[in-house]
This record gives sequence, structure tokens and C-alpha cells, in this order.
Amino acid sequence: MSISPLAPDIFPALSPIAGVKLAVACAGIRHKNRQDVLLVELDAGTNVAGVFTTSLTASAPVLAGREALKGGKARVLVVNSGNSNAFTGKAGVAAVDAVCTAATALFTCSPPEFFMASTGVIGEKLPAEKITAVLAPMMSTLSGAHWQDAAKAIMTTDTYPKLATRSLSIDGKTITINGIAKGSGMIAPDMATMLAFIFTDAAIAPKALQTLLEHANANSFNAITVDGDTSTSDTALLFATGKAGNPEITDAAKAKEFATALHEVLHELALHIVKDGEGAERLVAITVNGAQTPKAARTIGMHIANSPLVKTALAAGDANWGRIVMAVGKAGEKADRDKLTITIGGVTVAKDGQADPSYHESQIESHMKGRNIAITVDVGVGTASFTVWTCDLTHRYIDINGSYRT
Amino acid sequence: MSISPLAPDIFPALSPIAGVKLAVACAGIRHKNRQDVLLVELDAGTNVAGVFTTSLTASAPVLAGREALKGGKARVLVVNSGNSNAFTGKAGVAAVDAVCTAATALFTCSPPEFFMASTGVIGEKLPAEKITAVLAPMMSTLSGAHWQDAAKAIMTTDTYPKLATRSLSIDGKTITINGIAKGSGMIAPDMATMLAFIFTDAAIAPKALQTLLEHANANSFNAITVDGDTSTSDTALLFATGKAGNPEITDAAKAKEFATALHEVLHELALHIVKDGEGAERLVAITVNGAQTPKAARTIGMHIANSPLVKTALAAGDANWGRIVMAVGKAGEKADRDKLTITIGGVTVAKDGQADPSYHESQIESHMKGRNIAITVDVGVGTASFTVWTCDLTHRYIDINGSYRT
Repeated sequence: MSISPLAPDIFPALSPIAGVKLAVACAGIRHKNRQDVLLVELDAGTNVAGVFTTSLTASAPVLAGREALKGGKARVLVVNSGNSNAFTGKAGVAAVDAVCTAATALFTCSPPEFFMASTGVIGEKLPAEKITAVLAPMMSTLSGAHWQDAAKAIMTTDTYPKLATRSLSIDGKTITINGIAKGSGMIAPDMATMLAFIFTDAAIAPKALQTLLEHANANSFNAITVDGDTSTSDTALLFATGKAGNPEITDAAKAKEFATALHEVLHELALHIVKDGEGAERLVAITVNGAQTPKAARTIGMHIANSPLVKTALAAGDANWGRIVMAVGKAGEKADRDKLTITIGGVTVAKDGQADPSYHESQIESHMKGRNIAITVDVGVGTASFTVWTCDLTHRYIDINGSYRT
Repeated sequence: MSISPLAPDIFPALSPIAGVKLAVACAGIRHKNRQDVLLVELDAGTNVAGVFTTSLTASAPVLAGREALKGGKARVLVVNSGNSNAFTGKAGVAAVDAVCTAATALFTCSPPEFFMASTGVIGEKLPAEKITAVLAPMMSTLSGAHWQDAAKAIMTTDTYPKLATRSLSIDGKTITINGIAKGSGMIAPDMATMLAFIFTDAAIAPKALQTLLEHANANSFNAITVDGDTSTSDTALLFATGKAGNPEITDAAKAKEFATALHEVLHELALHIVKDGEGAERLVAITVNGAQTPKAARTIGMHIANSPLVKTALAAGDANWGRIVMAVGKAGEKADRDKLTITIGGVTVAKDGQADPSYHESQIESHMKGRNIAITVDVGVGTASFTVWTCDLTHRYIDINGSYRT
């Protein structure tokens, strides 16, 4: 598998976060000699927030995670790749329980402080014994330094590991936020369609932490789509160890600086998922303006972003804006056909319900052939906006997804 | 462009229909030396019914057709391929008016008896003068025999012409129903996402005709999808000349035999559109059972049918039923994960929320490599059913749609 042409040249170096230790191991879940298990130890007192897939066929670890989240506390996180433990019935629940029993014994904590996430093939029994067998040996390699290994261990069809970091100061204390994520296909929000784990040393009460995560999620993971397909395993967890020593944040609305930094981390990870979208050759930002509500703007943006006809035109570098008109028309949200304006790469290609007479395709030819495409659509009925990020639909998407299991 | 591997070996021979005459011509709208205009003369007294796209960015001929339909009468139909006259503003309305003026003058009828449909590129001005220039010369070639030429003249990315016919007896009178259709990409219902013109010599009052068309449409054109993209030009018109001499049908509910034959014609045309779906290698029937309502069953079926991950697995002949579970989960309609049953080619692959222990992939290997795939999903919450037809997503879809305009 060749690396996405949109991959970064340099990966960020993530500093250790007080109260967070990581280890990876090869459990042989799907492939031999591949690091496929991530273990994270969180110091006592760590608070946790989470958002999960809205899929009605959610995986066993998602169901367990939703339950554990009610406690607001976390001591251990286990993530495996290669098998999503989704649609596995009672055996799937038993597999989560087995890993929980082993991990909580090792870290002397209670089941609600245990979180698990699994990603990979749907409908195959998760070999929990392979995971429990590696947990004890992993204890000796736990360290604050294994961020890139951690990001690699959770990959499936990803072609590169996804990491982001920010730091800020709160009340004179330096706060760090580190995040890792995986995701490449089966990417359409609601909530997030991928796995992401974000860690901070800030002291933040569980309820405020949850609000901060949900807000940051709305314009990051919930604003991306690769193929419009929603995973059964989507999980984003945010852990706050409190080790930075800042006075505990209890009101999310007052934590503006933290909210901004958190959003930047999630947004960067979200864009990496699109850049590593299966077969992606171009990153496409679709901004919808002039909508009745932000929700309507997002719906229209998602219809444009998920249209196979738009995506194949983008792959070909073809400024076929008629397909954007089509996608606006099928979105079902209010739009004024006779006020519709479309710009590509800053050039107005259509306005007032028809082609802009001054537009020539040569004006945006080089933009369309580039790696970053910017499309804005004004639907002429209000003042709300939303930006959606997606990638193009190329032959490689079909190659990857025709051969994933074989 | 190679012909779809799902194309029929033999095209049906359509008999003339009393009161219907057809002619085709090369107007050079997009390509030279291609028959791209269809003219149909309908005898005085012909009733008409129609269903149109629900797109909010519907084309100028669709808007005009909705208006004309209020009269319930038709004398002339003009169809062009190569340009959809959508998103063309006032110039688009003027183009329809120009063709209407020319055609109604030639046939000495009124504007509400004129219908037009256009298909092709969106957002480019329709050269109405090229169409009006060929109408008068076409008058001399009008005949009841040009069905296959007519079906060819309305094609765009279609690889073969689509025709269907049925005959039946009503009160001792022989009734014929002939239909032609086009469609290959930008195919997702609501209503129909294609052009279809159906003609019968039966005598049917406009209101009953409309009811009959809407019913037949629901389980035919509205039950297919190629790429989930909804066209701005979808139009299906049903013309009834009344020349067969049967007592006029005024109550659709009493015309069961006609309704059945009409549904068969629409259904056959709809399946042709899927079989000629851009890049299609396989025809896939997805039946959803056990849903709360037929609408819910249809929504779930459409989510499965439109999932790029399902469609690429089908292209590869891969029985990746985990992706069907995913699609059920994202559909948002009620489903019981722990009662979900999936069969492929009649073999139960999953039931009661997990893989069927007795299932082996070898059982359906040859089915998955065939041209006709049958998937049934029981979502375990009710008794409603719906069947959706789609095709797989192959490399040719991307080839066709990356190069459509160039």
C-alpha cells in the first residue's frame, strides 16, 4: 500500500503528558508481526469524556464505552486493530469483558474505569485471549514516549499515522494536548467514524470535559466524510489527567483557550483522516454559505461531498460544477436556485442561477489539478455557514475496498 | 464505450400505437452526426400523466412540464440529449419557449399540450435554434415504427437503448403499452432520475392515468439507484391516446390488469437503467424484510444499495456482509441488531446478530461472481418489505465520470 500523496512530510513530535503512559504489542489478531494492540495507563484521578457512533449496529466496545463513560473516570484504555468486534453477538460482549477483567486486575481498578476500542473487520469473533496474553508483558514497556507507535498500532487501511499536539498556558501552568487518530474508509460523521484518543494534563471536571469534546467534535470529526459510510466502531475519547496543576475547569464556556487548542488538535486529526481517505489524491474544502441554519448548511455540504459524481469529477481535475448544482438540489434543504452562487478556487463560476458569463475554465485549471481544492456555494436563503472536508473518489478507493479482506 | 455486460441479447420489437408517431434527427447539440432529437406527435384527445424530479434545482423543461401537466392533454413531445437545460436561468426558460412556439405552430396546438425533456450536461445554454431548425423537416418522417431510433436518440452515457412493451385486453379491445427510457448515471430516485416515455392506446382519464403512473413508479423507477445522485431532469410521462376504443377508464383502482402491465413496462425499463448503470458488472436485488414500514424498508435498502463500501465489495465478488450490517446501522431506521438476518444468494450468512456458524464463504462463492446478486436482510422489527435494485461500483464508473465532459 503506497502512502497517501497528501501525507505530511514530517510528523509532529509529541511530548509526554504527565499521568499518561503508553505501550504497544503484536498480538497477531489479524496479521502476524504487526503491532496491533495499544495499552494506555492513566493515573488515578483522570477524567474522561467521549463521543461514539450513532450507528444502530454499534460494536460491543462502543456499547461498553457508553456505559463506562457514566462514571467519568478512566484508568486504562486498550485498543486493538484488525477486528472491530462488531456484529459478534454475545461472544463480542464476552470478549470485551475478558479484556476488562485482565486489564482491571493488572491496574487494580474497577470496570467503569476501563475503556476499549476495536477497529477492523466486522462480524468476526475477536480473539480476546490474544489480547489478554500480551497485556502483562506490556506493563514493563509503558512509557510517556510511545506516541508514534501508538498511532501506528491503531491503523487499519490508514497509510500513515495521525498525530497532533498543542500546548497553552492556563493560570500560569503549561497545558499539553496530544491526540492520535485512525481512519481512512467508512468515514462519514455522526459522530466521528473513526477512532481518536486525546490526552491532556489539564484538570477539567467530567461534565465540562464532555461539553468541550462535543463542541470540538462538531466542526472537526463531524465535518469530514470520505465515502458517506458510517462505521460501527466510531469512538473519540478525551482524557484529562489533571497533572498540570491548574485550578480545575468546571465551566466549559470559560475555557476558551483550551477549547480553541482542543479544536485545533481534533481538526488537524480530522483533516489527516480525509487526507488519508482511501485512494485520496486531493483534499477538498466545501463551504456552504447563505443557508437557513448551520445544520442545513452541513447537510448541503455533505451531499456535495458525498456525491460520487462530484467526487469522480474532482479526481479527474474537472470543474464540473453542474454536479454541484445537482447535489444542492438533492440535499432537500432550502436553497434558492436563482440566487445560487458557486466559486472554485476563489473564482466565481456560477451565479444567479446560471453560469457566470465572465468565467472561463482556464481560470481554475491549475487549481483543479492541485492537491487542495476550495469550493464555496452560497444557497441564497439565509446567513448560516458550514465547512465540510472530503477527498476525491479515485480508482484506488475501488482497489482498496475490493481487496480489503483478501 | 463498450456495451454493458448486462445488456440484453435481443431488443423487444415494439408495435405501432394508434395515435403515436415518432421521428428522430441530428441537431448537433453536443456531438455531430448523432441523432439527438426525438419528436413525438400525439393525436388530438391524448391524455397525459407525469412524475418529475424532486430536485430543488430542477431544469427548465421540468418546470414547464409540471405546469403543462395541469391541462392533462398532450399533442407533441420534444426530447433532446446532449444538454439538460438545467441551471441555465432565464435563457433556459426562453429555450423551452422557443421550441414550444415552433412545435405548437407546426402541430396547430396550444402550449399546455406541448411537453419537452432535455438530458445531458448541466449549466450550459441549450441551443434551441438547432432544435427548432430540425422540427419542420422531421414532420415528413413521422411514423409509428421508430421506437428503437427514439430510444437511441435520448441516450447520453447509456450503452444500449431501453425499450419495453406489453399488451393486454380490456373489454375485448387489445391494448398496447410501449415504453422507452434513458439513464445510466446520476441515478437515484425521487422520483425517477431518468427520462421515460410510455405510450398506450388505452382510453384513460387524466386523473386515473396520473394515479396509475404514480403507483407503477413507486416500485420501479423509485426503487432503483446507481450512484445515489439525483438528476435535475428526471421526467416520466405516460401518454394515453384512447385509440384502442375501450370504454374510458376513470377509476385507477378498477384497472388492475392495466396497472399490472404498466408496472411491468416501468419495472423492465427501470432494471435496464440499473443494468446499464455506469460501469455496472452486476445487477443486485436488495430485499429488506421485517421493517416497521415500507418506507423504512426502502430507506434501509437504499442505504445498503448506495454504500460505496458495499458496492465495491460487490464489484470484487466479495461477500463482505459486515458492510451490509454497517449500512443497516447508518440508515437511521429502526432495526434490531440482535435479530438481524442476512442471506446472500439464498444462503443465510448471518442471523441473530452474528455470523451464522454453519455458513462458509464457499457456499456463495459462485453466486458472488455471477451477474445477478440477491441479498435479503431481515431487520427483525416488523412485517414491511421493499426491494431495491442497484449495480456494483467499478473502475469504469470512475473512468466514465472523470471524462464525461471532455
